[in-house]
Amino acid sequence: MAATLLGLFALLAVPTVADLFPDCAKGPLANNTVCDTTASVGDRARALVNALHIDEKFNLTGNTSPGVPRLGLYSYQWWQEALHGVASSPGVTFAPKGDYSYATSFPQPILMGAAFDDALINAVATVVSTEARAFNNANRSGLDYWTPNINPYKDPRWGRGQETPGEDPVHLKNYVAALIDGLEGGQNQKYKKVIATCKHFAAYDLEDWGTTDRYNFDAQVNTQELAEYYMQPFQTCARDAKVGSIMCSYNALNGVPTCADPYILQTILREHWNWTGDGQYITSDCDAIQNIYLPHAYTNSREQAVTDALTAGCDLNCGSYYQTHLPIAYDQGLFNQSVIDQALIRLYSALIRLGYFDPASATPYRSLNFKNVSTPASEALALKAAEEGIVLLKNDGILPLSIPSGKKLNIGLLGEWANVTTQLQGNYAGIARFLHAPLYSLQQLSNVNVQYTSTENSIQFPTTGNWQQLLAAPIGNDVVIIADGINDNDESESHDRYDVTWAPGKIDLINQVASQGTPVIILQFGDQLDNSPFLNNPNISAILWGGYPGMAGGDAIVNILTGKTKPAGRLPVTQYPGEYVSQVDMTDMNLRPNTSSGNPGRTYKWYDNAVLPFGYGLHYTNFSVKVAGSSKTTYNISGLVSGCNRSHFKYLDLCPFDSFNVNVTNTGSVASDFVTLGFISGQNGPKPYPIKELAAYQRLFNVAGHSSQTAKLNLTLGSLARRDVNGNQILYPGDYGLLLDVPTQATWNFTLTGSPVTLDQWPQKPAQG
Amino acid sequence: MAATLLGLFALLAVPTVADLFPDCAKGPLANNTVCDTTASVGDRARALVNALHIDEKFNLTGNTSPGVPRLGLYSYQWWQEALHGVASSPGVTFAPKGDYSYATSFPQPILMGAAFDDALINAVATVVSTEARAFNNANRSGLDYWTPNINPYKDPRWGRGQETPGEDPVHLKNYVAALIDGLEGGQNQKYKKVIATCKHFAAYDLEDWGTTDRYNFDAQVNTQELAEYYMQPFQTCARDAKVGSIMCSYNALNGVPTCADPYILQTILREHWNWTGDGQYITSDCDAIQNIYLPHAYTNSREQAVTDALTAGCDLNCGSYYQTHLPIAYDQGLFNQSVIDQALIRLYSALIRLGYFDPASATPYRSLNFKNVSTPASEALALKAAEEGIVLLKNDGILPLSIPSGKKLNIGLLGEWANVTTQLQGNYAGIARFLHAPLYSLQQLSNVNVQYTSTENSIQFPTTGNWQQLLAAPIGNDVVIIADGINDNDESESHDRYDVTWAPGKIDLINQVASQGTPVIILQFGDQLDNSPFLNNPNISAILWGGYPGMAGGDAIVNILTGKTKPAGRLPVTQYPGEYVSQVDMTDMNLRPNTSSGNPGRTYKWYDNAVLPFGYGLHYTNFSVKVAGSSKTTYNISGLVSGCNRSHFKYLDLCPFDSFNVNVTNTGSVASDFVTLGFISGQNGPKPYPIKELAAYQRLFNVAGHSSQTAKLNLTLGSLARRDVNGNQILYPGDYGLLLDVPTQATWNFTLTGSPVTLDQWPQKPAQG
Repeated sequence: MAATLLGLFALLAVPTVADLFPDCAKGPLANNTVCDTTASVGDRARALVNALHIDEKFNLTGNTSPGVPRLGLYSYQWWQEALHGVASSPGVTFAPKGDYSYATSFPQPILMGAAFDDALINAVATVVSTEARAFNNANRSGLDYWTPNINPYKDPRWGRGQETPGEDPVHLKNYVAALIDGLEGGQNQKYKKVIATCKHFAAYDLEDWGTTDRYNFDAQVNTQELAEYYMQPFQTCARDAKVGSIMCSYNALNGVPTCADPYILQTILREHWNWTGDGQYITSDCDAIQNIYLPHAYTNSREQAVTDALTAGCDLNCGSYYQTHLPIAYDQGLFNQSVIDQALIRLYSALIRLGYFDPASATPYRSLNFKNVSTPASEALALKAAEEGIVLLKNDGILPLSIPSGKKLNIGLLGEWANVTTQLQGNYAGIARFLHAPLYSLQQLSNVNVQYTSTENSIQFPTTGNWQQLLAAPIGNDVVIIADGINDNDESESHDRYDVTWAPGKIDLINQVASQGTPVIILQFGDQLDNSPFLNNPNISAILWGGYPGMAGGDAIVNILTGKTKPAGRLPVTQYPGEYVSQVDMTDMNLRPNTSSGNPGRTYKWYDNAVLPFGYGLHYTNFSVKVAGSSKTTYNISGLVSGCNRSHFKYLDLCPFDSFNVNVTNTGSVASDFVTLGFISGQNGPKPYPIKELAAYQRLFNVAGHSSQTAKLNLTLGSLARRDVNGNQILYPGDYGLLLDVPTQATWNFTLTGSPVTLDQWPQKPAQG
Repeated sequence: MAATLLGLFALLAVPTVADLFPDCAKGPLANNTVCDTTASVGDRARALVNALHIDEKFNLTGNTSPGVPRLGLYSYQWWQEALHGVASSPGVTFAPKGDYSYATSFPQPILMGAAFDDALINAVATVVSTEARAFNNANRSGLDYWTPNINPYKDPRWGRGQETPGEDPVHLKNYVAALIDGLEGGQNQKYKKVIATCKHFAAYDLEDWGTTDRYNFDAQVNTQELAEYYMQPFQTCARDAKVGSIMCSYNALNGVPTCADPYILQTILREHWNWTGDGQYITSDCDAIQNIYLPHAYTNSREQAVTDALTAGCDLNCGSYYQTHLPIAYDQGLFNQSVIDQALIRLYSALIRLGYFDPASATPYRSLNFKNVSTPASEALALKAAEEGIVLLKNDGILPLSIPSGKKLNIGLLGEWANVTTQLQGNYAGIARFLHAPLYSLQQLSNVNVQYTSTENSIQFPTTGNWQQLLAAPIGNDVVIIADGINDNDESESHDRYDVTWAPGKIDLINQVASQGTPVIILQFGDQLDNSPFLNNPNISAILWGGYPGMAGGDAIVNILTGKTKPAGRLPVTQYPGEYVSQVDMTDMNLRPNTSSGNPGRTYKWYDNAVLPFGYGLHYTNFSVKVAGSSKTTYNISGLVSGCNRSHFKYLDLCPFDSFNVNVTNTGSVASDFVTLGFISGQNGPKPYPIKELAAYQRLFNVAGHSSQTAKLNLTLGSLARRDVNGNQILYPGDYGLLLDVPTQATWNFTLTGSPVTLDQWPQKPAQG
């Protein structure tokens, strides 16, 4: 083995950022078909792969690819991150100062999800891919990005829930479609702008819970919930948005590590979802191939682990396990050369689709530079994204703050989030040009005095630090603002939470501060906490939820506090009560309530004891909603199906059902955005029935006081259909209701007649053995 | 409330380190009896307290004590740490450079415990208290220290187990007696050298396990195991070593937060153990008073929480909860002034016993300075302490390393501990003059070449970093040394482990390195891990356990690797198999096996499926042991009791039973230390019976090859007695065995005749109501 290892040493000497594009004009590959821009993508990739020696092929299967110097094929780093802006990662190199020393840093997806504004997501993704191309042109990043994370955020303890737009699959589907379009630059272009990577496929949403961690977890998911929930965002990403790349995950799914599972990689992803376009490839999560051997112990040798993964269709290994062990496995005859050829053809087809082998003049993407990075418009978009997402959870009328003219408002400010820096960004972040915390942004106001009391010690020792100074924050002030919550020390990659409550010492402190007669406003950052102690306390005047609001987070918060911007975000997740975590194990993947296990149900679809529900959010005004103009209350199923233009809608679930106009009236005087949410309820199809399911949403902008706008909720056949125990998606006849807003303000009832129709026949897992 | 808070603000302006000793010659207190060195300690303290206004009294109840400027009583910080050397803490200020910028940093107690050398512990503690006094004389620390942590280390997951000498109560009792003597300077001195604080009283050994944490945990402990195990180290500390201070803990015990529990603070500690000497006081853990209110919710008001604690006898609050809430509770009539007076009399009696109000000339301690800190002798003791503790767990003969003369040994070195710095120290550490990692110390050898491969990424992503370079470590080397294990990122305060196994990726890496034909030596640092994968792998030649070895840790390891020093440490804890953690909840305080809960038993006394047992440790030679010379095999209980000199032994459990001479023969040729361990076994008293229990031990030094030394195992009546369900300690007639060494090499059988005798009548908890 030692000799083999020595042979691989060349891998480690190469830089981690691509040196150059291959020289297709005069380099060794000039006469290879890969350099022929008139040839098909497949022919070009095959020609390149045919020129490789077998040892060279193995070397190209890891994220740190050495390339093939003999052929003028440079090293390439496949691992770039860009969750909410170009992000620090092995393939991304920020400059120490000056050009390329920063990029726009948007809020975390969990806050952008709260905006319920798909156009915003598309605009953000467009900025990210523009900046990514600029970095690539400066040899400061590669062309493929391991984003987005679209595992539904089904358990409030998940440490990476912040990376997702929330818990609802329809919301995630719309989000990912808008995002992939913005990142990859549209589906029907010759050149992809960058390649996005939907991760983590599939059923990955646990980091570390007791002795179970993401590396050893075997998620037990029944076919019904796999098809209706865990797979849905990936279906949209792969089947409809036709993303360039998918990442298989650390966990096993029903006994098989996902990176070695032909049922999900081949049968579902490539066959059922027709994800077989030029250059569409699968990468493993980092070390997920090693994990097949240990800790999963799915194979009894390292060679079998790499063979199983490669054969199942995992084309690229984040890590060096392929590079180290594929040669030995090949020598042992465990797979044929055609298997590795297929993987490499996919990978190099992907680079071809990025224009990697084409002249710089072929695409304007190659002209982007630092002038296109962190522009005033991009930074304004980062502010807007935060403003649109922030959710008003409580308000006794104190907000927006009113400041008598000619006077200054005296604000006492405290809390662990008051003066943060990178904490504003959450994880998978890059370097921002600035990071505005609430303290900074409040200090920019000319009509306030801010008296800030910093927190000397962490909450671990609340009363040993400057507890008494904190208690004294109300003294001499008109209002106290407490910027607190949780952060990446409490929840992050490899680190789930065990509880969803505020630390008892903080509750004690905050309630003492609030007992002194001065109004208190809580700015709660990070993911959701059970806010009951403050929602129920009349001395707490208002609560805003700000997630991880990004570079301009403080500005966004202050604009909302002062009323310059009006809040209209909605909770993209359920706010669970503290006791929830003792009612269901994190390892329990079931969504439906189960009386024998005690699982009270997951997400707003199956759980109805929320502190605050999915979709909740207040405004500085009031809105009334009703369905307008749709006179139809009965639909025939066969008519719906036969009326669908199948040349336009390849998949039945995407066929239109109806478009509902919703009349939204601002009954107050303050102009405000409004997120129109439409849910479907009904007792149709297999029991049990969900409480309701999100069908469509539209954000209206700047609805003037005492006036109306019309929102259009476009429902598809898939909006109404349900999945049976085999995962088949079926449109059932019966009575349905379209429920508007949260809490429900109005319901539109209608009926489907005729016979059930299957919209999607789910592929079944073959029997093992 | 605001006015009260404002009044307390003075607290926060004071420095955290005492400015000066009170001026008893010319200051405002000069004529107060507190300054009269001929008066009794109690009279002096009472006189001072009588001079205080009530508001001043409340201010003096927190760790950050403002003193009373009016009386020339300076601020005092009660919070100093010195677990294994003067340590960074609120009351200890290291200088940025030069004098007082460092102190001697000894190994963590878990490694010093492995030495089984009480004289070593006493010597270490003497150095620590000398350095503490020097720091105090420079106004860089106070005079009381919140050390040692003597909760028995009963669960391998406990994040603070490293702070303790291990799992066995007899071992802890001897350790704490030796330590307190060294720290406080002997019991019968007029002046205490420093005050030590035995913590955490009681049944505290859980940081954070699921939704249970140390702040909210209610430990359910039965009276039998409370008396025989959890309380034993505190009994020695308080009753026998007469420590100056005890710290009550965060957790509740059988429903009552310990800091508010008169049963343990008053009935057991002060009454049963006669812990009522001048200046013996109780402090709370930091915020443990706040925790009585939240999260324990033991009281329904903050005022009742502080009242319950003060009334139960907790004299000092680490935190500001007493300072904030006692005034209001007093105004509400919840307690009388005599209660707070008693607390303050205890606290100021303690300072009087430290010479705080006496002239500098009264004690040589006041003359210590930086010349007494981190002396060559102290640093040599730090090296010796590490060498004595290191345990040899496996050796196929490769150790000590043999280097042919005239050649150099080529060593490949890797692992996350190879080139560490402060990680050598573990938690509660100070700043050391140097920190020698294994890499540094190996590089000091003239006859080796070290090829070090650093670990680029953490184990989280093993194969994405320089995995292949790590795999290549054997190439060109004679031996590979892997310095790894766990550290404070895996286990620490507020952070328990969930597993006790090596990370699967590391097992995979290490076994691949070992498969290449070059011998591999593992240096395992941090607390115990299930070493089965390496014990069972014939390609792994040797394993040393090094704990957290302190400033000279690398030197100690290298001295043992080369044979300059011979290993003789013994495991102070059980090395459990990985599956153990799924067999017993961390919240389960029961030591005895329980078939219904599945608890397989805790510690070597009740659990016999260890990977490696308590007391295990190999040598570079072999030893045989046998009981020599003791011809007696039958003892009459009443004779034993009546023969005890009760004027010398106040407590029956301390009465001598017999002294066994053990003949220890080094049957090999290499001189070596040897730890002689004697355990008692028998089937006497209440069922179930422990497998065995440590009775006595003695470390022999430098036993020459092919020669013998005699160890003396002094057993007391307490060594043989057992506790019944009411906690009463009873000496039972029956057959006993004295088991020598681990694994047992020899047994000496004897019989007790006569009737049972109660050695200690345990006070029962009064019925609640």
